[in-house]
Amino acid sequence: MAQYVYGKNVVRQLLKDDKKIHEVLMSENFRDDEIQKMIHQKKLNVKKLSRKQMDQLLKNEVHQGIALSIDDYKVYSLEELLASIPNGKMPLLVLLDGLEDPHNLGAILRTSDCVGVDGIIIGKHRSVSLNATVAKTSTGAINTVKVASVTNLAQTLIQLKEQGYWVVGADMENARDYREIQCDVPMVLVVGSEGFGISKLVKKHCDYMVSLPMIGSVSSLNASVACGILLYEIYSKRHPL
Amino acid sequence: MAQYVYGKNVVRQLLKDDKKIHEVLMSENFRDDEIQKMIHQKKLNVKKLSRKQMDQLLKNEVHQGIALSIDDYKVYSLEELLASIPNGKMPLLVLLDGLEDPHNLGAILRTSDCVGVDGIIIGKHRSVSLNATVAKTSTGAINTVKVASVTNLAQTLIQLKEQGYWVVGADMENARDYREIQCDVPMVLVVGSEGFGISKLVKKHCDYMVSLPMIGSVSSLNASVACGILLYEIYSKRHPL
Repeated sequence: MAQYVYGKNVVRQLLKDDKKIHEVLMSENFRDDEIQKMIHQKKLNVKKLSRKQMDQLLKNEVHQGIALSIDDYKVYSLEELLASIPNGKMPLLVLLDGLEDPHNLGAILRTSDCVGVDGIIIGKHRSVSLNATVAKTSTGAINTVKVASVTNLAQTLIQLKEQGYWVVGADMENARDYREIQCDVPMVLVVGSEGFGISKLVKKHCDYMVSLPMIGSVSSLNASVACGILLYEIYSKRHPL
Repeated sequence: MAQYVYGKNVVRQLLKDDKKIHEVLMSENFRDDEIQKMIHQKKLNVKKLSRKQMDQLLKNEVHQGIALSIDDYKVYSLEELLASIPNGKMPLLVLLDGLEDPHNLGAILRTSDCVGVDGIIIGKHRSVSLNATVAKTSTGAINTVKVASVTNLAQTLIQLKEQGYWVVGADMENARDYREIQCDVPMVLVVGSEGFGISKLVKKHCDYMVSLPMIGSVSSLNASVACGILLYEIYSKRHPL
């Protein structure tokens, strides 16, 4: 199935990535030299629309006058994801337990690209899926970071532990300070949902929890911010100055 | 002037913070024991509305059936902000240069509360202001972290440097690795806009730049994620394990 993605950043990235593009939708007053040059060079079909037609088609999302029709984003199986990790690389995966906000998934993909995360695991049910908002927020990382969808998160963690992974949950309860995270092993970082954190069943399979110190009055960080801080802590420990 | 804020998290926080509330708007099917108990105890005026009326009034934002009418958020002057920093505390300020997305400002306020930032400085022009989306995304931090609005960001940095502050910009160009940030001095962390980073004029007044290592294919992080990682690096250096 095909879908639309939109916004200058994601369009520019897709044109650079040589992703297969079925059609370009462009509002009549769209101007961006770099993007228009790439579209011309690739000899893509361009459909010119009025601003109003674009708004209707893209349900009033902020499209900046440019959209592409592309194939659905590829979602991997756990086996494909694990098989794609290069030999000799110390693996790092992120498992998202019930994350709902596509902006958070997009931002987590973006950070994951930056620190070299090998893949993101999401549940088939009760979580966000790969859509145009995720693509836009990820600024192209949706094409570089593999996402695997699994039916049972707890079973997945059991399977990963059998393969030598350590499972670290981001949670306040009985947690170590995040700076005590141990990084010289294959790792899965588990991040919970925006409202409820990590579910009970998934928590049971975490080897230990890490938390970020908080000295103010709010009791939690935004999920993508917390995930970003933890991923950079791991990157930093694995690549010391 | 009064404005509406909405959503369970921000309403719960405002009720706890004893913020002056003019009126409560509640959809007929709203249920939340904790919030309803607090509203009852405070003897607040409650106006019951249909879901549709709530949607109209709040322009289809995700209000979760509950909203409060409150005074506009207080914005401070630079002098008030500086005067509010406790004696003996090593100051940490964040200056946002042209940030536009209210979700980013909300998330930065939230992280700032968590690590004890003394205040956030924004420009009067060309940047986001304190509105209901900022309040909701900040999960209450809009009431705990002071925001100062100034007419001239460059002049403000000159003034802060005269008072002994070091100005550190988050930028890729000629930057040190973020782990080399020097934290045992009064600091202003400067974060640029989502699209264009820090403006030329503001850059000129930075003592040095710090950047986050990025080994993938995207070229920048989300502004609130990058700000969060840098703020926790500073917190971590100032409060070692």
